[in-house]
Order: sequence, then C-alpha cells, then structure tokens
Amino acid sequence: MDRRLPSSFVSEQRLWDRLAAMARFGATAAGGVNRQALSDEDTAAQIELVQWGEELGLAASRDAAGNLFLRLAGAEPDSAPILSGSHLDSQPTGGRFDGVYGVLAALEAVQAIQQAGAVPRHPIDIVAWMNEEGSRFAPGMMGSAVFAGDRTLAETVVACDAKGISVADALAAQAKRLAHVPLRTLGGTVRAYVEAHIEQGPVLEREGFPVGVVTGIQGKHTFRVEVQGEAAHAGTSQRSERKDALLAATAMVQALAAALHDDTDITRFTVGRFEVLPNAPSVVASKVVFSIDLRHPDSAMLRNLSAQVAPVCNAQRGPCEVTVLRLSAADSLRFPEVLCRHTRTVADRLGIRHRDLPSAAGHDARYLHDIAPSAMLFVPCHLGITHNEAESATPADLAAGTRVLADLLLELAA
Amino acid sequence: MDRRLPSSFVSEQRLWDRLAAMARFGATAAGGVNRQALSDEDTAAQIELVQWGEELGLAASRDAAGNLFLRLAGAEPDSAPILSGSHLDSQPTGGRFDGVYGVLAALEAVQAIQQAGAVPRHPIDIVAWMNEEGSRFAPGMMGSAVFAGDRTLAETVVACDAKGISVADALAAQAKRLAHVPLRTLGGTVRAYVEAHIEQGPVLEREGFPVGVVTGIQGKHTFRVEVQGEAAHAGTSQRSERKDALLAATAMVQALAAALHDDTDITRFTVGRFEVLPNAPSVVASKVVFSIDLRHPDSAMLRNLSAQVAPVCNAQRGPCEVTVLRLSAADSLRFPEVLCRHTRTVADRLGIRHRDLPSAAGHDARYLHDIAPSAMLFVPCHLGITHNEAESATPADLAAGTRVLADLLLELAA
Repeated sequence: MDRRLPSSFVSEQRLWDRLAAMARFGATAAGGVNRQALSDEDTAAQIELVQWGEELGLAASRDAAGNLFLRLAGAEPDSAPILSGSHLDSQPTGGRFDGVYGVLAALEAVQAIQQAGAVPRHPIDIVAWMNEEGSRFAPGMMGSAVFAGDRTLAETVVACDAKGISVADALAAQAKRLAHVPLRTLGGTVRAYVEAHIEQGPVLEREGFPVGVVTGIQGKHTFRVEVQGEAAHAGTSQRSERKDALLAATAMVQALAAALHDDTDITRFTVGRFEVLPNAPSVVASKVVFSIDLRHPDSAMLRNLSAQVAPVCNAQRGPCEVTVLRLSAADSLRFPEVLCRHTRTVADRLGIRHRDLPSAAGHDARYLHDIAPSAMLFVPCHLGITHNEAESATPADLAAGTRVLADLLLELAA
Repeated sequence: MDRRLPSSFVSEQRLWDRLAAMARFGATAAGGVNRQALSDEDTAAQIELVQWGEELGLAASRDAAGNLFLRLAGAEPDSAPILSGSHLDSQPTGGRFDGVYGVLAALEAVQAIQQAGAVPRHPIDIVAWMNEEGSRFAPGMMGSAVFAGDRTLAETVVACDAKGISVADALAAQAKRLAHVPLRTLGGTVRAYVEAHIEQGPVLEREGFPVGVVTGIQGKHTFRVEVQGEAAHAGTSQRSERKDALLAATAMVQALAAALHDDTDITRFTVGRFEVLPNAPSVVASKVVFSIDLRHPDSAMLRNLSAQVAPVCNAQRGPCEVTVLRLSAADSLRFPEVLCRHTRTVADRLGIRHRDLPSAAGHDARYLHDIAPSAMLFVPCHLGITHNEAESATPADLAAGTRVLADLLLELAA
C-alpha cells in the first residue's frame, strides 16, 4: 500500500468514536437519536463539529440557509472547492448513522489528507446541510435545495413545524448560538460534490460489498393533503349529517394505496404523517392533514402515479372539502458516469469490493447534482433498517467507505 | 304567577352574565372554550365558582375525585342531599354551554330559592363533576363514575394525557390550588339528582320547545385500538416487507365504518382520536393508537355492534399487531318515570312548553342514576351544533330550563 495516500491514515477507531460522540446529541432511550433540524440537539451537534474542525485548523463558516462548512485550505485558496458531507439532523426516532456518517466520513477523510502531508490544489469543504430529513419542517433537503438555487430562501423559511415555529425563527435561534462562526455567501461555484451515506437498504450487506457506487437517485414527489370537515358530537350527530374529516381521510389513504398498487413492488407510497383536529374521542374530526411520499425510479411512471393523487383524494372526500398541495416533485436522476468510474477505480486500487446500485432514498446530492458533478458512495446498513432507532452499521464498513472517500477527495482536489 | 316560587326569582341576565364570565376561562379565538379537565383553566373556573358560592353563603367542599360541591344548608342539615349540576370541563374546541350550563343553572336555581325565602328540608348540593368530557383523560365522566362507585379511584387516577401526565398528578396539582376548600368524604347517599344540559341535538329548537324532559341515555361503548407496526424508510423499504401501522389502522377504520353501517342511521360510530408514531412524512408509521366511540339506544343492539369491533380490527391488521381494549361499556338507561312526571308537572305549571326526548349523548346523570333517582332536563342548542366552538343557546331558553329546575329542586328538597 502506498503510505502516502490519505486512505492509509483513515482511523476506524477515531471515526467510530466521533460517531458515538455525535450520537449523544438527541440520544434516545432505545439507542437511536432524535435530533431534528434546527432543534437544540441539532445546534449542539453543529457546535461540536465546529470545535472538532478548529482542532484540525479547519475554518468554519455558515450560510443564511443554516448550512455549515469546515474548510481545508487549498494551494489555490480562491478556486472553487470540492464539497463533501451530508446532514446532522435526524428523524424523530432516527438512527446513529443516517446523515451524520457522511459528515464525519468527510471530516475523517480531510484529517487523513492532512496526516498524509498532502496539500490539495483546491479547497475541500466539509458540509452539513440544513434539514435533510424534512420531519420537523417539510419538505426535506432544505439547505441543499436553497444552496443549489432549486428553491429560494424566502419560500423555504415560511414553513412551520407542528408547534407553529417557522424555519425563519428556528434559523435565527440557531444563528444566535453559532454567532462565533462567520457567515459566508449563500451558494457559489462547486468543483465537485461527494456524499458518503449508509445504504438504507439490504443489498450491500446481503451480498457482502463494503462499498456501493451510487448510480443515481430515485425520484420523489411529496404532497400535503388537507381534509376539512366539521366538529360534531359523537353521540348526537347523525352519520348522514356529519362531515367527518377522519372518515374521509382514511378512505383517501386506502383508495390511494389501491390506486398506486403495483404487483412488481417498485412504487413506494407512504403516508407517514397524519394529524387530526381536535383529536378527541367523542368529537367528530373537523380536520385532518396528512402527508404523501411517492417514489419510483422511472420518472415518467412517477409523474403518472403523481397525477392520480388529487383525483383519488377528490373522489373520496364525501361531504368534506379537500386540498391537495404538491410540496416537491423531484424526478429520478443519474450521477455522471465519469465520477462513478473514478470512485470504482479508487476502490479497486484499495482492494475494497464494490458494486453499483441506485439510491432508493433521496439525499442532498440530488440538489448538488444540479450545479456540480456529484457522486455518492454507500456503506452497508444492517438489514436495511433505517429511519429507526435500531439502525446499525459496522466500524469496518464505515471505515472502508471513508478510505475510498479520502483518496477520491484528494484526487478531485488535486 | 305565585310570587313565592323560586322560578319567579330566576334572573335570565344573571345566568347569562355568569355563563359569559365562565367562558373567559379557556376562551378560544373562535368564541368557544378549551377548558380541559384538571387544566389550569378548569381549576380557575372552579375557584371562581367557589367564590360565587361564598358570596351566597354556600359552603364549598371537594372530594378526592376532584368533584366540587356548593351546599345550600337544609332544615335537616344531616339528611341526604339533593344534587344538581353537571361539569365545567370542555372539549379542546368546545362551546360555552355544554356542562357549564348545568352547574350555573343549579347555582341560579339555588340563589332563586334563597331569594324566595324558602328553606328546603334537605340540603341542596350544586356539583361540578370532574372530567365529564374524557378528551384529555379517557374515559370521560370520571368524577361521577367514581362518586357513584362504578369505578374505583385507584383505577381512574392512572390514566394519562397525551403528555404523560396522570390523573393522579393533575388532581394533586388542582388540590393544591383548591387547598382553601375543605375535603369531604367520597360518595355518600343522594336523595335525588337533577342535571340540566343543552340538548346537543336539533329537536327542541326545530320543534319550538324551550324544555325537554329526558327519558333516558343512549348506551355507549368506547375502545382504544393500538396498532403496532415497524418504522422504515419511505424510499427504500418495499411494500411487501413493511409493517405499516397507518395503512393497517386506516383499513380498520374503513372496515369498521362498513361493518357497523345501518341504513336507519341510528348507530353512532366515531373515531375521533388517531395518533401516529413517529408521525414523519418519510417514515413508515411504527404505531397508531385510535379511539372508537360506539353508541346505540338499544342495549342489545349496542352489545352486538360492540362485539364486532375486535374481529374487524383483527381481520384488517395485515402484517401488524393489534390490541383492542374496551375502555367502557355503558348500556342504555331510562330515568325513573316518577321524576320525569314531576318535571313535566313543574313545567306545565309554569306554562313552559316541553316534550320528552332521549339523550343521545352521555352525561354524568348516567352514573348518578345507579345510586339515586335521577332526572335530566334539556334546553335547545342552535342547530344541534355542539363539541364545537360555534355551540350556541338563547338566554330565554337557558332561563326557562332554570325556572323549571328551581321549582323542581325545592319540591324535591321539601
């Protein structure tokens, strides 16, 4: 092995220890994390990351969209940087690897580059994107979408969480605690983007590959459905006079599941959020708001399925009113083959077994792909369990992915 | 009109003003109230009621179940009292009359009895029962059920609200603020119970009767259904591998609505509460808990419908686990005809038009009926709208019901 390559300096233990340290922020009793976007826990994790970066001499900065950067200066400091990272926020009952692995793998890769004594030509920015998960504030991937110019900051900051707190207010609160980190201009030219992530599927583990070269990302359309009924007494109001928002909404969910059903089991249809007002046992529901997450690797098919959502909901509304709002509509994408090949070459040189696979989950790389050559690499995730406190991955696999990332980043920045 | 009857002293304005004053506690922007059981607002309303009672020389007391009493002493102070009242708690988006009318009508009736210079032989207790609505803590009618011995205090106080606060803790917090009110023994002999209430249906208003003589209460069975699935990623997990608690729960609700459907529209089937975990758009639901409120005036039919709940839920559980817990099972009841007749006679003497009608809603009188001769009288409620911030009733109708109550209470206590 060439001792001068950064991959030789990647420390499995150091990476694992940092993952364990980050898992304290929002740790749940069941061993997972609840570190939702712009929460106190998320901010604490960001502060810790800035501290770790400072210890390595990396310059921290943040932008108006709540994205956080740690820069390894290059020989040409004013040239466009290579970006690598992912996100620190989690689902309410999330795991210890989704997102945070990509950020800490990039940090470990940069530290390995430093230890190898290499000075890249272009700067390398480790990045933690704001609100990838979209569980507290919908839709997700807010920070990367705004950075890439796919959405404006103005339209993004008006979203509110379940308590009525806006992204604008939550960003302001976080900015106050990160006041010691200088603000940088939003967006900018990016030379290339590489994101490491757990697979969130069972393929790599089942087939014994420590690394997956991600060929593209499955498309995803998301919706917010509001069903407006009328509150009434559960004992006195007759069925024929009711406007029962819950009965209409449950009929919509069932009808959507039937209409979007495919025998091949490729379509992904999920209603994960379902909110009822006033949500009292003896009151007919006056309002239900539910989410739809719809995905398919074939963009044409996805648009076709997506077009059925509003008609199906309307057909099931009964005496209620229904509003179907499409929150996002991202088609399926393919990463540039030249970057995939580069990743394979690096892995081959390190003797790390790999295979190509598509990403069924969305990632921040979706938006970076719009402005820069982007790539992703996956590491195995036990049984494919994710968005779950039981999410797990092995130190060896996490380190293998990081070794590929370290050498790849240095070559891209050379 | 006989100037010495208490009904002559009932003040429409005073009653209306007190209703308006009580509506301040938990007032909502839409003109309703959110004064859930044992909340700060509920406690504030109780403190106000105690104050009003003191101004009339009525002795306040409370029991371990959180029920509040104001006593008009009788000539035989140690004899069993007549009770009259209802509840001060409301639904989360409740109205200004449901429950509170029965308490303030009793207060107005007692004040009218005092002004008439009448001294009853037996004491008259104005009562505000704890947690009739059952929206914060399920099931409802807690205070009256415990008072009547239908449930033990021990089994009641373990119920928790959505934040995990137990009835025991909430009772203790309220007791602290009501420390100036002496504690009385729980339960005891009751000579008779009379509860005034808004109809919560459209019949009296539509037919122009200011007073309804309630013949009985429709039976009600309540359930808590827990559907256990498994959290999974909305993009990566295949439909065939999912344990989607929301998909199973919505199928149960739809199947229940179909199975319990009756063309005559007499059955009342309501799912008013529906809670999802983790309730995030891109996470397959790991758990859903929903309520069932099932009512029918025919007890045999109600038991028959009730027996279908668990089998229907089980048939729709798919890959999930389901637990169906019956929280309460109250059969339909008829109030004693002798008391109904007495109420009619009093109303006739006052020239107030009335008609018999059953109660489709449950009331605290359900439990008092188990230990004492009980009666209810209804006043009209605009369009039957209730458990809704738009609930409304006229000052004239509210006063008419109170005049009947005043004379009836004095005669029962004579």
